[in-house]
Amino acid sequence: MTSGANDKRRLTILGSTGSIGTNTLDVVRQLGGRDRFEIAALTGNGNIDLLAEQAKSFGAELAVTADEGQYEILKAALAGTGIEIAAGRNGLIEAAERNAGWVMAAIVGTAGLAPTLAAARRGADIALANKECLVSAGDLFISAVAEGGGKLLPVDSEHNAIYQVLEEHQRHAVERIILTASGGPFRTSTLAEMRDVTAATARAHPNWSMGLKISIDSASMFNKALEMIEAKHLFRMRPDQIEVIVHPQSIIHSMVGYSDGSVLAQLGCPDMRTAIGYALSHPARPQLDVQRLDFAKLSRLDFEAPDEERFPALRLARLAMERGGAQGAILNGAKEVALEAFIGGHVGFLQMAEITEAVMDALSHMPAATTMDDVFLADEEARRIARQRVEQTAAAA
Amino acid sequence: MTSGANDKRRLTILGSTGSIGTNTLDVVRQLGGRDRFEIAALTGNGNIDLLAEQAKSFGAELAVTADEGQYEILKAALAGTGIEIAAGRNGLIEAAERNAGWVMAAIVGTAGLAPTLAAARRGADIALANKECLVSAGDLFISAVAEGGGKLLPVDSEHNAIYQVLEEHQRHAVERIILTASGGPFRTSTLAEMRDVTAATARAHPNWSMGLKISIDSASMFNKALEMIEAKHLFRMRPDQIEVIVHPQSIIHSMVGYSDGSVLAQLGCPDMRTAIGYALSHPARPQLDVQRLDFAKLSRLDFEAPDEERFPALRLARLAMERGGAQGAILNGAKEVALEAFIGGHVGFLQMAEITEAVMDALSHMPAATTMDDVFLADEEARRIARQRVEQTAAAA
Repeated sequence: MTSGANDKRRLTILGSTGSIGTNTLDVVRQLGGRDRFEIAALTGNGNIDLLAEQAKSFGAELAVTADEGQYEILKAALAGTGIEIAAGRNGLIEAAERNAGWVMAAIVGTAGLAPTLAAARRGADIALANKECLVSAGDLFISAVAEGGGKLLPVDSEHNAIYQVLEEHQRHAVERIILTASGGPFRTSTLAEMRDVTAATARAHPNWSMGLKISIDSASMFNKALEMIEAKHLFRMRPDQIEVIVHPQSIIHSMVGYSDGSVLAQLGCPDMRTAIGYALSHPARPQLDVQRLDFAKLSRLDFEAPDEERFPALRLARLAMERGGAQGAILNGAKEVALEAFIGGHVGFLQMAEITEAVMDALSHMPAATTMDDVFLADEEARRIARQRVEQTAAAA
Repeated sequence: MTSGANDKRRLTILGSTGSIGTNTLDVVRQLGGRDRFEIAALTGNGNIDLLAEQAKSFGAELAVTADEGQYEILKAALAGTGIEIAAGRNGLIEAAERNAGWVMAAIVGTAGLAPTLAAARRGADIALANKECLVSAGDLFISAVAEGGGKLLPVDSEHNAIYQVLEEHQRHAVERIILTASGGPFRTSTLAEMRDVTAATARAHPNWSMGLKISIDSASMFNKALEMIEAKHLFRMRPDQIEVIVHPQSIIHSMVGYSDGSVLAQLGCPDMRTAIGYALSHPARPQLDVQRLDFAKLSRLDFEAPDEERFPALRLARLAMERGGAQGAILNGAKEVALEAFIGGHVGFLQMAEITEAVMDALSHMPAATTMDDVFLADEEARRIARQRVEQTAAAA
């Protein structure tokens, strides 16, 4: 382990073995590795080999597996290294609360809520990759960040792009933010074709390589729906200020429109290390070994309006933003159940949105969360009703 | 006239009757007109009717015609209004030196040099539309601005775009600036076709409506060559950091590439009022009644590498930047003569670059200007040798 008595930056990566986590460690390595950074904690889930290797390679103080059943295996893998270990929910909280000025919040799903909130509350700068913090617990999370006094640095390529070109001192002049969307594999499919989509065809994303669930969320544009809700909280926008434009090449990562007619955009090759490096080095820009854009090679960038009939998720995002209350958490919880049902072959591609909307309608009375328990309650209720809907839908098929 | 004892901003427009000037007054009107601005001086050339009408309408203190022969006509047109009048070179200097915190420098050509320099030296913020200040007198002009302590705000859509997305605090991270170029009417022409181009065909610009000379400069990309040299001085770039990409739609006005792989861009409809309003309101962004971009309608943006064989002006700009000395002034002076010879039908379209390069080679020994006289000397020498070359070229044809 390196000593704390120096000017190295201390950081923690919640979710270090996933795609964001491994890219974050690559950026850390590019920016000087152990000569410039001290890793307070790394957390993973089932991939103990990778977690142990990362912890040793970067000299982490603490390594945590979210899966309590893997505690002994992690312990064995790190025996003799002096690296502390922990497991389970409490282990994640311990990692989040350990003194580190910068925390990458890359644990996927509601499991990421509590540790990210803990890091925000103690005032760490949060590089945010977890979606649920804003989608399901937006008001609560934004309050926690404000209370803690740290920065909130979005790592999603879209939100990071907006963060880069949103002039804080010219807030009054911001008319709109324009989220770009690749349109996914069904951009040009007909409504009839989309009814018959299977999980295998839905997972093929044209520009980014991703996991199965996020690939399908991208294909249905539920991914973009969540980003709209995130953008509302991150940038304090009214729903009518949030536009989505389909841009198949994913080169313009998103844009901000101003009252003088200017639109500012951030562009780049599809490589999440740019956004991660920006968040890690902010307010400075790092030197990164990532591919540079070559506009002559690009040749063209295309744009088209999203079709909300074929991609109803976008409409649901607007509905959730307009309704407020717990609708973000409900949309997300219901969508998760519908997504699993789709992957399992129990409901159709377009039925994911139908189920989600029905659950949102059924729980439209639920107020905004003021505690984490409220968030979990909304999530659980949404999932419970969604499961009923899935059963009814599957039975009717 | 309005009283000076208030919080109105005082401004002067050098070249108020041209395209930039009339658009500037439209922006002034949009942002409150005489309720918010006080016009110290307006200057024009031959269009006395328009100049007089502008002066009366905006309550200018001083109206100046650059053409001494029009003095009496301007006097008659403004009789009884209380508006002061002046004429000629001294009149332009008087306008530039009159106390106004913001000066639009929109006099075209070398005639704009002395008054713009005078305004810069006394510390006014300069909204710069005149190209010669940077192309022909770059070092001198930049020193004058630094000495005066005012801001230098570029109004060309390309440089204004770069100004908008160039992060001053991240200078070290700027890798390149990317000037976009429409490619003009001969973007897809062959070299053989371009040899036979006439002034009438060259003037048709696809996106912006402009005067004859600037239209032809745009068609030959000499316009872009001047912008490259301007960018070098404005943004303190090395020649190898300045790229040009052909982008026929002129929607992305220019870009800055950073060391983290990010490229930031400013986009907008082709309307110079956005850049003028930005320069007038800086550091705030104004509310302007200009068309907003609709990306679904745009549908696509194209890019291609410029062909330096068909557009040798770009190569000459690099040559001028690399050589330094008085090469900017020489390129510009020689090009002006060649351009007039082309309009007169004495030399061919591609011969403009041949003549310009020969003059640049012949005067490659001339050192950088340290006074305005040096600038005029370089300009005159370049024009003299260019005229010889024009005669030789015309005689050989």
